[in-house]
Amino acid sequence: MVCNDDGIDSPGIQVLAESLRELAEVIVIAPLNEQSAIGHAITMHYPLRVTENFKNGKFFGYAVDGTPADCVKIGIRNLMKEPPDLVVSGINHGSNTAINIIYSGTVSAAREAAIMDIPSIAISVTNHSVKDFKYAGKVAKLLAKELAGKDIPLGTLLNVNVPDVTEKEIKGIILTKQGKSKWDDIYERRQDPYGKDYYWLTGNLLEVDTDIETDQAAIKNNYVSVTPVHFDLTDYETYNKMKKWGIEEVFNGKKD
Amino acid sequence: MVCNDDGIDSPGIQVLAESLRELAEVIVIAPLNEQSAIGHAITMHYPLRVTENFKNGKFFGYAVDGTPADCVKIGIRNLMKEPPDLVVSGINHGSNTAINIIYSGTVSAAREAAIMDIPSIAISVTNHSVKDFKYAGKVAKLLAKELAGKDIPLGTLLNVNVPDVTEKEIKGIILTKQGKSKWDDIYERRQDPYGKDYYWLTGNLLEVDTDIETDQAAIKNNYVSVTPVHFDLTDYETYNKMKKWGIEEVFNGKKD
Repeated sequence: MVCNDDGIDSPGIQVLAESLRELAEVIVIAPLNEQSAIGHAITMHYPLRVTENFKNGKFFGYAVDGTPADCVKIGIRNLMKEPPDLVVSGINHGSNTAINIIYSGTVSAAREAAIMDIPSIAISVTNHSVKDFKYAGKVAKLLAKELAGKDIPLGTLLNVNVPDVTEKEIKGIILTKQGKSKWDDIYERRQDPYGKDYYWLTGNLLEVDTDIETDQAAIKNNYVSVTPVHFDLTDYETYNKMKKWGIEEVFNGKKD
Repeated sequence: MVCNDDGIDSPGIQVLAESLRELAEVIVIAPLNEQSAIGHAITMHYPLRVTENFKNGKFFGYAVDGTPADCVKIGIRNLMKEPPDLVVSGINHGSNTAINIIYSGTVSAAREAAIMDIPSIAISVTNHSVKDFKYAGKVAKLLAKELAGKDIPLGTLLNVNVPDVTEKEIKGIILTKQGKSKWDDIYERRQDPYGKDYYWLTGNLLEVDTDIETDQAAIKNNYVSVTPVHFDLTDYETYNKMKKWGIEEVFNGKKD
């Protein structure tokens, strides 16, 4: 199953579907509209509609008027006869490294699959105005093939980022950890034609990662970055530290 | 700073602000409208508006027509003169345990604060139709006080869940890990008045956690659950396993 967050009509998902079709049967289930930065939102308070999407007069896939996570949920629960062997989300315009993993709809689609115990890959190309997704499509295919039968635990997805350079310039594939780069958000304050203020989010990614084995540094150095990502958010280090504080005892004695 | 995902007019945030005001100066910056299950969405492609919110003729806080994460970002970047000592998000109607941490707007507000290196707490009451947030307000105040000066690493938030029982029935506070309970999603297929299908998400939380030191089991047993949560999603165990596969070498030799 193929999904994305840029919407079913974006070029990245078409290249991805085409590339994976050389390997297996592919079903496309993707958002009707762009859903970037939607995070792991799901639609509970509104109904979802599913429509068939055609390209060049041929059936391409199902469009869902919801989020990437919605697509994976409804796709697997209702639209597919049996669960897919693999969910691949992308190919996203723009990298999903470091803190962007949190905000990304692309990664959330793959994460939803992981939650449902289905192996999954999220794949992104670093440049927002990328024109050629072919190499990334090839990487997706290679990874899908290579990972079949490999023992990746259920609940873990692979987050893949491909530098937007020519294939010749790619130095290789490197296994990475989530980097620590963050955004220095800037909200531009503007005035509408009626004199009322509004704010628009901009900003730059503050690149703090230098270790080549982190996602952001890897793509900066023209490596394809592959990060295993899971959804256990427990901070075990702090858990163990807090255990020693006796926080439970402190509170249990002062409930009023 | 106080935020939530149920919206600035929900009762939970009012109890929370009131309770924390006994401890420190409080500024409320919260979504104008309900944002449940919005995950860590942020608003990039639309402008945000900020309005002043009044209750009983008194200024209560700032309402932002965006997501919980938006509120924290714009609140800290633009609306506050200096960063807050603490961000508390809630009090949410309904628990945010196990997999719900991923979907929750309440937790995402606290996580956005953590990303910005500001200590933060997310607090939820287990029942969706909860009427009395007072005890949860008290817990928030106790925790805020207790944690001041404690060495919780930047980037880690505390996710707190309070059972919806009387204070007398509460057995204590317990430090927990994120549980493994998940949803068995069901999409109800219905027809609109024009004969077109639509789908509505329902389902039940499959409770698989029995260890009292996991969030879902703790609240089931009438404990207040406190889970340290971070945003490093790297699955280090799989990372180390994959290192041994030599996946980098395999791919680096077969780029075409």
